[in-house]
Amino acid sequence: MREVYMDHGATAPIRPEVVEAMLPYLREHFGNPLSLHGYGEEPRQAIEAAREKVAALIGAQPNEIYFTANGSEANNMAVKGIATMARTKGKGNHIVVSAIEHQSVLYSAETMGKLGFEVTPVPVDRYGLVDPQAVANALRDDTALVSVMLANSEIGTIEPVAEIAKLVKARGIPFHTDAVAAVGRIPVNVGELGVDVLSLAGSQFYGPKGSGALYIRRGTRILPLIDGGIQEGGRRAGLEDVPAIVGLGVAAELAAAEMKKRAAQLLPLRDRLIERLTTEIPRVYLTGHPTQRLPYHVSVTVEYIEGESMLLFLSMQGIAVSSGSTCTSRALKASHVLTAIGVEAALAQGSLVFTMGEGNSMEDVDYVMGLLPGIIDRLRQMSPLYKPGQ
Amino acid sequence: MREVYMDHGATAPIRPEVVEAMLPYLREHFGNPLSLHGYGEEPRQAIEAAREKVAALIGAQPNEIYFTANGSEANNMAVKGIATMARTKGKGNHIVVSAIEHQSVLYSAETMGKLGFEVTPVPVDRYGLVDPQAVANALRDDTALVSVMLANSEIGTIEPVAEIAKLVKARGIPFHTDAVAAVGRIPVNVGELGVDVLSLAGSQFYGPKGSGALYIRRGTRILPLIDGGIQEGGRRAGLEDVPAIVGLGVAAELAAAEMKKRAAQLLPLRDRLIERLTTEIPRVYLTGHPTQRLPYHVSVTVEYIEGESMLLFLSMQGIAVSSGSTCTSRALKASHVLTAIGVEAALAQGSLVFTMGEGNSMEDVDYVMGLLPGIIDRLRQMSPLYKPGQ
Repeated sequence: MREVYMDHGATAPIRPEVVEAMLPYLREHFGNPLSLHGYGEEPRQAIEAAREKVAALIGAQPNEIYFTANGSEANNMAVKGIATMARTKGKGNHIVVSAIEHQSVLYSAETMGKLGFEVTPVPVDRYGLVDPQAVANALRDDTALVSVMLANSEIGTIEPVAEIAKLVKARGIPFHTDAVAAVGRIPVNVGELGVDVLSLAGSQFYGPKGSGALYIRRGTRILPLIDGGIQEGGRRAGLEDVPAIVGLGVAAELAAAEMKKRAAQLLPLRDRLIERLTTEIPRVYLTGHPTQRLPYHVSVTVEYIEGESMLLFLSMQGIAVSSGSTCTSRALKASHVLTAIGVEAALAQGSLVFTMGEGNSMEDVDYVMGLLPGIIDRLRQMSPLYKPGQ
Repeated sequence: MREVYMDHGATAPIRPEVVEAMLPYLREHFGNPLSLHGYGEEPRQAIEAAREKVAALIGAQPNEIYFTANGSEANNMAVKGIATMARTKGKGNHIVVSAIEHQSVLYSAETMGKLGFEVTPVPVDRYGLVDPQAVANALRDDTALVSVMLANSEIGTIEPVAEIAKLVKARGIPFHTDAVAAVGRIPVNVGELGVDVLSLAGSQFYGPKGSGALYIRRGTRILPLIDGGIQEGGRRAGLEDVPAIVGLGVAAELAAAEMKKRAAQLLPLRDRLIERLTTEIPRVYLTGHPTQRLPYHVSVTVEYIEGESMLLFLSMQGIAVSSGSTCTSRALKASHVLTAIGVEAALAQGSLVFTMGEGNSMEDVDYVMGLLPGIIDRLRQMSPLYKPGQ
């Protein structure tokens, strides 16, 4: 049976070069990077080399990169760290987010809400686009932070972050973007975006799990999420996960070198899969923006049936995809993203997300399209809602 | 040149069995544990198997174990999570800690202080022991949390946590213990200790960096530190670091199986090193408790000279030790632990910490004692404070 992994948004496989680079730090170079004796030296240098590589991928300075354990930690660090800092300075009582942020941003804002902050979610249009002017209109004198993602992992839409950041920065308000779904896949430059804080995760671009980073522009006022030691300039305590950091560095270097090649490979697959899904199967609808969209990302809703059933049938044929966000698919809640773009609850249940990567080919697309119509047809026959001929 | 690593408190090497167990999860089993398709299955089972092993090591139930990236994250999660939860419920305005907690506990409490909590540090005696009655006397009706460590990494003292927990729990107040320096080295049982929340770190007992856990007794009210997805029962969001978790599980299993053997190996080394240091070199003083002490831990202060100089001279001879806490040694601050046990500032500068592990032997102790007296003598000759004959 063919194996088709189209769930790179949930996590990508690690590149063999990345694993190879990690191994010496799992074995001989085990020292604590802070140690003053010889065992600390090699791990310390390895971390700084990785910091340079991650910085280079997003156009930052190395001393603006703070390593974390994953994208969710980076998002929590950004939202809570900036909001709490503002609170302790007595200025800041309000947070603005888009309605389709990842849960790690939304729930962080919610937690700050429990501590007295007001949270304004800015709505999006039917493609999931945030209107920059709507963000500007939501700003108040006591706004401590604005957080709008660079790209959405459920619907693939790329947001006009540079425009939004310009309006937010004009008011002197810190701006964070969750770039977890974007970094390593499309060109991301913190200078061009004009953001103060940006989250990324290694598992999204063939790096290790347990790796992530927060870019913090120099001069940004932020408290640590993890207090304690002097690691990461005092901004993220705890023994550094040297192997994961080394792996993240190599993955960043590979992503920078192969960015064009990767997009050139995936874009035709994306467009073919979208076209075939929406033309060859009745009542299948693209979600997210048709063109302002991540080059590896295809998301649709399939009327009358549930994403989870399709996903399980596809899995039996060796095809791995997601239904909505992997972080919540097991929670069996309606996706807040699909709700925000106006997809009605019943239709949102039929969500399918294909996220492609370097292992995928046009043959994979054809393999999926050879099986999916039959699966959908079979499931619809069992659905009480479906009337044949529709 | 002989290589003598006596800095297991900074980090231990990873056991080869642990690395071997991690490799399949760095390579073929790369899936996201939450995925509903086949790629999620093996990682998901591996995480649950690791959870059982960690639970078994400390006498907990598997569903009371929450994986973190390290001990500092676990400590932050405990202190901030419990205090913030109390705050949102309108009950709780006060935190009690010992004066010699790790920075990740102390600074977490300090951050809560900035958000309006009062923090009471309970002093310790000259051995670093916390008086249970002093903790009881510090309790108030609005105390949200008490945090007293199980053992101190700088001076090796083991605290009477069971006694303290009993007094704290009698008042219905949540009790956390930072057991990072203890778990995997001495028997730790959450039932016997009577604690509600307990932190541990894999890097302390031959497990991977990037691994840690927080034990949370069922029924304990705590908010997440990292909000977002439904991972870890909704208490710690973010893609699970499957390789690190698997490694932690294997390290926990090995620690449980070898606990007695390890202590039996290290105790004679510890006692011999303490005896020779304090009798063969003039003006060297043991810090911490002489017997109520971690079995792998030796800490002294050496009068008239600086720990860092000794450390560098020892490093040139292949001997790796620490001066004070590795997390702060580069910060060049006086150790808050040594200050708390009444060591004067000048003497505290001459701190040396030897933390032994399974690679160490009596020959290592002899090797250290063959070199250290000469190093100390040479440094003292250069010290303006030292008068020969003292």
